[in-house]
Amino acid sequence: MFYHIKELQYKAKPERPDPIFARQLQEILGGQFGEISVALQYLFQGWNTRGDGKYKDLLMDTGAEELAHIEMLATMIARLLDGAPVGDLEVAAKDPVIGAILGGMNPQHAIVSGLGAMPADSVGNKWSADYIIASGNLLADFRANLNSESQGRLQAVRLYEATTDRGVKDMLSWLIARDTMHQNQWLAAIYELECKENVVVPSTFPRELEKREVSHVLFNYSRGNESATGRWANGPSIDGEGVFQYVENPQPFGKKPILKPAPPYIHDTLPAVLRDQEIPPSLK
Amino acid sequence: MFYHIKELQYKAKPERPDPIFARQLQEILGGQFGEISVALQYLFQGWNTRGDGKYKDLLMDTGAEELAHIEMLATMIARLLDGAPVGDLEVAAKDPVIGAILGGMNPQHAIVSGLGAMPADSVGNKWSADYIIASGNLLADFRANLNSESQGRLQAVRLYEATTDRGVKDMLSWLIARDTMHQNQWLAAIYELECKENVVVPSTFPRELEKREVSHVLFNYSRGNESATGRWANGPSIDGEGVFQYVENPQPFGKKPILKPAPPYIHDTLPAVLRDQEIPPSLK
Amino acid sequence: MFYHIKELQYKAKPERPDPIFARQLQEILGGQFGEISVALQYLFQGWNTRGDGKYKDLLMDTGAEELAHIEMLATMIARLLDGAPVGDLEVAAKDPVIGAILGGMNPQHAIVSGLGAMPADSVGNKWSADYIIASGNLLADFRANLNSESQGRLQAVRLYEATTDRGVKDMLSWLIARDTMHQNQWLAAIYELECKENVVVPSTFPRELEKREVSHVLFNYSRGNESATGRWANGPSIDGEGVFQYVENPQPFGKKPILKPAPPYIHDTLPAVLRDQEIPPSLK
Amino acid sequence: MFYHIKELQYKAKPERPDPIFARQLQEILGGQFGEISVALQYLFQGWNTRGDGKYKDLLMDTGAEELAHIEMLATMIARLLDGAPVGDLEVAAKDPVIGAILGGMNPQHAIVSGLGAMPADSVGNKWSADYIIASGNLLADFRANLNSESQGRLQAVRLYEATTDRGVKDMLSWLIARDTMHQNQWLAAIYELECKENVVVPSTFPRELEKREVSHVLFNYSRGNESATGRWANGPSIDGEGVFQYVENPQPFGKKPILKPAPPYIHDTLPAVLRDQEIPPSLK
Amino acid sequence: MFYHIKELQYKAKPERPDPIFARQLQEILGGQFGEISVALQYLFQGWNTRGDGKYKDLLMDTGAEELAHIEMLATMIARLLDGAPVGDLEVAAKDPVIGAILGGMNPQHAIVSGLGAMPADSVGNKWSADYIIASGNLLADFRANLNSESQGRLQAVRLYEATTDRGVKDMLSWLIARDTMHQNQWLAAIYELECKENVVVPSTFPRELEKREVSHVLFNYSRGNESATGRWANGPSIDGEGVFQYVENPQPFGKKPILKPAPPYIHDTLPAVLRDQEIPPSLK
Amino acid sequence: MFYHIKELQYKAKPERPDPIFARQLQEILGGQFGEISVALQYLFQGWNTRGDGKYKDLLMDTGAEELAHIEMLATMIARLLDGAPVGDLEVAAKDPVIGAILGGMNPQHAIVSGLGAMPADSVGNKWSADYIIASGNLLADFRANLNSESQGRLQAVRLYEATTDRGVKDMLSWLIARDTMHQNQWLAAIYELECKENVVVPSTFPRELEKREVSHVLFNYSRGNESATGRWANGPSIDGEGVFQYVENPQPFGKKPILKPAPPYIHDTLPAVLRDQEIPPSLK
Repeated sequence: MFYHIKELQYKAKPERPDPIFARQLQEILGGQFGEISVALQYLFQGWNTRGDGKYKDLLMDTGAEELAHIEMLATMIARLLDGAPVGDLEVAAKDPVIGAILGGMNPQHAIVSGLGAMPADSVGNKWSADYIIASGNLLADFRANLNSESQGRLQAVRLYEATTDRGVKDMLSWLIARDTMHQNQWLAAIYELECKENVVVPSTFPRELEKREVSHVLFNYSRGNESATGRWANGPSIDGEGVFQYVENPQPFGKKPILKPAPPYIHDTLPAVLRDQEIPPSLK
Repeated sequence: MFYHIKELQYKAKPERPDPIFARQLQEILGGQFGEISVALQYLFQGWNTRGDGKYKDLLMDTGAEELAHIEMLATMIARLLDGAPVGDLEVAAKDPVIGAILGGMNPQHAIVSGLGAMPADSVGNKWSADYIIASGNLLADFRANLNSESQGRLQAVRLYEATTDRGVKDMLSWLIARDTMHQNQWLAAIYELECKENVVVPSTFPRELEKREVSHVLFNYSRGNESATGRWANGPSIDGEGVFQYVENPQPFGKKPILKPAPPYIHDTLPAVLRDQEIPPSLK
Repeated sequence: MFYHIKELQYKAKPERPDPIFARQLQEILGGQFGEISVALQYLFQGWNTRGDGKYKDLLMDTGAEELAHIEMLATMIARLLDGAPVGDLEVAAKDPVIGAILGGMNPQHAIVSGLGAMPADSVGNKWSADYIIASGNLLADFRANLNSESQGRLQAVRLYEATTDRGVKDMLSWLIARDTMHQNQWLAAIYELECKENVVVPSTFPRELEKREVSHVLFNYSRGNESATGRWANGPSIDGEGVFQYVENPQPFGKKPILKPAPPYIHDTLPAVLRDQEIPPSLK
Repeated sequence: MFYHIKELQYKAKPERPDPIFARQLQEILGGQFGEISVALQYLFQGWNTRGDGKYKDLLMDTGAEELAHIEMLATMIARLLDGAPVGDLEVAAKDPVIGAILGGMNPQHAIVSGLGAMPADSVGNKWSADYIIASGNLLADFRANLNSESQGRLQAVRLYEATTDRGVKDMLSWLIARDTMHQNQWLAAIYELECKENVVVPSTFPRELEKREVSHVLFNYSRGNESATGRWANGPSIDGEGVFQYVENPQPFGKKPILKPAPPYIHDTLPAVLRDQEIPPSLK
Repeated sequence: MFYHIKELQYKAKPERPDPIFARQLQEILGGQFGEISVALQYLFQGWNTRGDGKYKDLLMDTGAEELAHIEMLATMIARLLDGAPVGDLEVAAKDPVIGAILGGMNPQHAIVSGLGAMPADSVGNKWSADYIIASGNLLADFRANLNSESQGRLQAVRLYEATTDRGVKDMLSWLIARDTMHQNQWLAAIYELECKENVVVPSTFPRELEKREVSHVLFNYSRGNESATGRWANGPSIDGEGVFQYVENPQPFGKKPILKPAPPYIHDTLPAVLRDQEIPPSLK
Repeated sequence: MFYHIKELQYKAKPERPDPIFARQLQEILGGQFGEISVALQYLFQGWNTRGDGKYKDLLMDTGAEELAHIEMLATMIARLLDGAPVGDLEVAAKDPVIGAILGGMNPQHAIVSGLGAMPADSVGNKWSADYIIASGNLLADFRANLNSESQGRLQAVRLYEATTDRGVKDMLSWLIARDTMHQNQWLAAIYELECKENVVVPSTFPRELEKREVSHVLFNYSRGNESATGRWANGPSIDGEGVFQYVENPQPFGKKPILKPAPPYIHDTLPAVLRDQEIPPSLK
């Protein structure tokens, strides 16, 4: 169950309106690695954890915090849109600054949301649950989380570099710091689980059931040998189960596949046609 | 540039047709973490690498291999669909096994693809480029890759557990082994980059520009203190830049946000209406 | 900002596992009118409200409650999936009940989410922000909300009729009651706004700027006159601005449109080709 | 069955081309509440009506009219695109007006549709059937329709405010008037159905099967009591079945949920790992 | 402008209900090549035709007919759903026929549409405007149309083979016949345009601006020479502009691409890191 | 199996960076008819071909070549993005050229991909497998391929007209030439299959099972007789199976459909309500 309080986790006030930047900022609200993604990803992982304890609590703590970040970004975007103009080519042609705004803003911010934030990214794609993952295996999922916080902080930093507004920079410096913490916390949890289990997910699948002869081999499918010099091609494997090998000229282990014909009721191309033979009149 | 050879990387032949399993197997061909995802993810990361060297080569090696995995799965699925029946309720009611097939198979395997594999997941969602990521920052992206290989191996293992067909199990044990290698290789590359840079992505953003006072703090937004006992709340932070702290009763740092009214040409709800005041007749 | 407490708003415990019903129940978690939709719809409407007061508070109260409903449904679905089997055709053919489960369950519940709830509907479409609306005009949006609660309660009732599990029915009877309240509350708010403004949204657009001669006219574009007998074709209009009229044989007010040719650099079909004339050799 | 006549329902001719406004106008052609949405929504509701009579006829009348609106908007957009330029940065840098066009137009209007209208919204998202609803329950669906016409008229009004072209304004004033009628007609139909049935959808579900103790209660999940002063928290409920109540400090009715472990073949995180215990070597 | 008449173009009445087949039949209503696709594709092509004449009229004739086919399929699907059961595992386990229905039907047909047809395909993906094309170039578009009618007739034939219901077969034999006509008509129109212009689209681009040395060359990028024996590798080219050639060992014409580093404000991986060099402390 | 070599099939180097054109060029990389679409379409058709021989080899040859085109476009786009600026309104207002770039570029090229190409089209829609087709019937699929190459070449030509950069034009003239070949080759393959089978797909469905009386009839559903003058309404049909006919006033062959009521557990609108009758109190 959730309680909302109306104060923001951190302030979200720009120095001045800027509809162009409002559009860009949508990326970390409603994009692939925006705050909607991490909020719902952590909450679903928490709700689906089969058992209890510190990992589940950590997920719920962080998921609830990300809801507060959605709120901060929605507030900031609405303020960046304050008094945003509307217009057509004639309006744009008269005033180059308004022209730049009409070209660079998201038109839906005026037409659809009435100067409000949208659950969408910086080009206007609506947020999709395709962006999130919750597998029931926490080591796998914490790696998903570490990735999300890495991509998310990278995007926040790029936005920080793009704005000249001190209010926006101030809020972004908060979000960037929180992403620092979240990368740290998922790393801490990952290291702990890797120690308890193994670095390979899932750790519970018996190794003898996989084709172990290719479990630590790098196949060179892109001509040139630069990759042969990496750690991944030399020395003991990271999982401690073997030694890395490099195969310069990988050969196929399988045969050329030839599929059987389909039954007539499927009406695929007939075998005779494929073989360049005459089709019997009865089939025409 | 790419050359194709017709032999498969590894054999892909089931003992017998099974349209129900064909549908399930689509998950690791065209699902969020299927082979299309990893192939295009690694290739785009490689093409976008600004520079040259072993990391780029590793990406191209692995991307090209994943194309071979798409091919193996497409071949296996087509064979699992050999002679798949079509039918309606009357057909299903007569023979319980055919009824089970009609209920459990993907109807598009008959109607749309003519007993061929589809670029779709196990419930029929078409593959989407929303699944992949290439950010230009390799540490961020290798974490995405490690996650993909973790989720992917987990799904392959679950499918291995579900099938009784020795041919399918044989192919899956190959793919599982390759996922073992790919987890190992991305881990090796990640450790190397973390050493060269720092564990926090991006490492090039000056730390003094973030709100460092919250860079290593866990806020307890979900009532209950289980998470206070984890490594992420105690001891030096993983990035070596601070000490983890735990805040039991986090308070808001911001104020209650109140947004300014919109301009009249936007036709949002009028401030007078929000404040329960009479609307002046001129505005009605 | 949000706080989470671990107790559920209401209990979510089935009598027994049922992976078939788990799939169906996904509809009101992650479908077009599921709990994710209403939660994010109300929260975005609240965050985007330009001003303050009772309507905004009502939106935040209800949005926060819907988060609790997502949690209840996620919990219920995970429990319905307890111990769900995996299998292929051979497994299905041996035991008709397992066959029914494999046909009727969502395979991603096993392969992807590891027996957890997913942000998806009952056929497996992932949740999309295309489902929600926040326009900045509260009368418009409260109508969206009334619709959501009407569709949502209808779906919950249909699911109630489909299950024989007393635990599931118990939880659904809670959600249905809350939908009763939510329909009541949006109706109350709508009536208030309609009184303050007018029934036509937006009320602030000057009526003399629209083509008032067709503002209260029903055109009969589907042969047959049944619709002429309705209230919408007789008597004063609901908005008090006119009298309903019925036009039995509506005629076009516009002309046949003929578009100008495109410039040559667009390479559309040439006008000469459209007019069945010879193309000059210079253009070939 | 449908007949098409080539004359437009109303004229669709701008004073001058304007590719920037063409892009914006796409919103009410192919956006969430554009004409494609209402046309297909009303037609599907009509086709799915189980029975006959005036409601079905009204749906078919209006659905057929909306097809004419798609046609008017497609025509208008094609004309706004007349002679639209193509170009790159060099072209844009030379002439600020062409620069504004290249920045503000949809590039697919030149590259993909050859200066034709597209089934897409103002940012280029393709139209999706996720936008529409037909539930078989007409009261629910007429509320969906009232919402669509409210959002649609709001968007048309915003576009009217944005353009300076008298031809475009003229057409929009027609569409706005038709939206006025459509809001009126769905209101008339809704009031009639609410009288026959009840305001709560579906009216046919026995009230004693829902948890009536919470059917008229507002829970205060967002700190602050502004919402306690509304009609929805005071007096008899709108459905005539109870009295509104306000609960200031809502407490959970359920317990903290703890999910059972998954079966081993699912390879979720092991219970021992969650409980911070040693994993038995046999499971490693 | 459109008029609707209530009689169907052709009858749409099954012998008996069949919710399993209702789901399958959705493919040709709301799938990639279903009737919604062809209706909107032809109408948009017609509306966007820049000029007038017989091609535009043909498009509007056929587009309007396809609307009637949507109507027939919607009617048939609703009737196949007559009295469809709802239920859970307990219901399914008791009666194998109901179990087969619950497994094989689309659960949204009960929960969402109330036994009505949906704008979706046979696995439940909602219809998307991504399926359609209108480019402004009629030869290109008529090829799109020929493809749509070929795929559509193929799917209708596969469905014909799957059903045992004489009413359904009767309606499908109508739709298959109309697809025969539509393939014939687009072929007739294509041949005419190919004669007027050339077989290569667009015909208006000057041939000397393309790299003519590779305009008629087949490169052998898949090891093995079977394709060398086809017409496409021998004799004069179809466009009459050259002679087909076959290149057995295609070599790259370009160089290995090395991209320049990104500016620092983008925070991509640093060149030093890519080159395995020490990062200067100032950049860390 | 696939091998990659690092040299490009053809060079991909612009004269100068141009982020506006980079966005436009995305259309033929990741749009509906971009290189990702043709690559995966041909590969899936090849993998699904049930049998062997020259058609399958042709598909694999061409599919592998299209992978090289993705690579060329990704390289070109990354180079067009070299040093692309980031910024907000203040930056845009100071320098009109930077303003034009910020308005006309895809903001995700900076924020998300770090100046790399994306699997998306020119407005930022991510690539979707909805774009591709593989049906198992080669004549149907080669028509899909001919359409793809026609639309693709048209788009490439439009982009050629829009750019002033000689490096970009040079690469496009290569791709346009390859599209010329690919249109030629699919035409050659189509003519061969049409000779072996028949022009109507699928050729294997017995003609006597379709309603032959409407297999060659053009119904005039759009008022006006221009289409009566075309080849498709006069003379022998293209398939040699009949004679084209034109019906000026097509009448319905079916009756007005009236659907039966739904069962009570579906809670659709009651028949009494539809018929304007009193609802019995027991049902209220």
